[in-house]
Amino acid sequence: MNKPGQVFIISGPSGSGKDTLIKALMEKRPEIKLSVSSVTRAPRPGELNGSHYNFITKDEFLRMLDNGEFLEYNTYLGNYYGTPRAQVEAWLQSGADVILEIDVNGAGHVKKKLPDAVSIFVMPPSMRELGERLAGRRTEDEETAQKRLLEALREMECAGSYDYIIINDRLQNAVRQLECVVEAQGCRAENMTETVKGVLKDAQSVNWQTSQNV
Amino acid sequence: MNKPGQVFIISGPSGSGKDTLIKALMEKRPEIKLSVSSVTRAPRPGELNGSHYNFITKDEFLRMLDNGEFLEYNTYLGNYYGTPRAQVEAWLQSGADVILEIDVNGAGHVKKKLPDAVSIFVMPPSMRELGERLAGRRTEDEETAQKRLLEALREMECAGSYDYIIINDRLQNAVRQLECVVEAQGCRAENMTETVKGVLKDAQSVNWQTSQNV
Repeated sequence: MNKPGQVFIISGPSGSGKDTLIKALMEKRPEIKLSVSSVTRAPRPGELNGSHYNFITKDEFLRMLDNGEFLEYNTYLGNYYGTPRAQVEAWLQSGADVILEIDVNGAGHVKKKLPDAVSIFVMPPSMRELGERLAGRRTEDEETAQKRLLEALREMECAGSYDYIIINDRLQNAVRQLECVVEAQGCRAENMTETVKGVLKDAQSVNWQTSQNV
Repeated sequence: MNKPGQVFIISGPSGSGKDTLIKALMEKRPEIKLSVSSVTRAPRPGELNGSHYNFITKDEFLRMLDNGEFLEYNTYLGNYYGTPRAQVEAWLQSGADVILEIDVNGAGHVKKKLPDAVSIFVMPPSMRELGERLAGRRTEDEETAQKRLLEALREMECAGSYDYIIINDRLQNAVRQLECVVEAQGCRAENMTETVKGVLKDAQSVNWQTSQNV
């Protein structure tokens, strides 16, 4: 039987650079799966359906919600966001690790359903830097950008409830830290039970060998 | 005030290669301190006093033990081994991370005294490989080597009580895993409290700035 996969929850405000971080991790660890959220908001320029998000209608979202098809869902700036359950569960059962890129509320819900999930919060190095990153993003109006900044502050105040916090100052360092969290998790004793059994299983043959030498 | 340092307990049987692993880690992270144990056994060829161990007499060991100068101590093959407390505590208070290379019993004692210590068990990839590594070590007689192999088996059966298990098959992989455990520990939310405060402390200036822009 395969060891079930590990869920990594990754949160962080807009402007924390978590998308870039996740992309860099997946280039180095292509075996890890990234869950694609379903959303009811309009695609931003450059966002592809099925790659960044599944863009669906509000009616479709509510129908899926009724059917219990989401592992978690949330609303943000008037739109619905949800993590489809079936794909995540299939990946985990096949032994694959899965990344859920979800917000603070979603992280709380998933942690209740999947207590073994490892949660990681990505932060900018300072609020000033975050403000500049968001101001540089010219894809939305001033009011939305302001809401996003206040929302970012609210999210960051929850960072302490995560298992790990990564400060995304220099991308290269942040990627290495994210890789290390994933790598270290694989070395947790509870994830090594079968490997240890494998090492100890030939103990009898070694005892036999040494008694032959006496 | 400095954040106190982190204790990493590293155990593993003779032949697991933990000494080499620790040496490789400390070359990459020279800021980490390695506690030098006090022992009453005779030095093996090539072992330097004060570098590998503090070689002391049994009388001296027992006097230190009476004075409560050991964080943990143990006997192994008739000799005493102990971790001097004062140096470790001084390092931790200065904010330095400290490695304790101690056996399974010592690890249990330290975990009781220092519950935040992170424990790592280093294993060979198989018992057969371990037997070969020990047979290749020609510095001791057959009887001692046999005791060491049985002791190794007894130690490895405790691996599951550690936080992390590293299989030392290819040294390079094992070193990367050890580095990752240390790096990931630095990202644990409880070790990032001050950093997060630092990020959020300029939140007011950003609010002021955005209200100016409205």
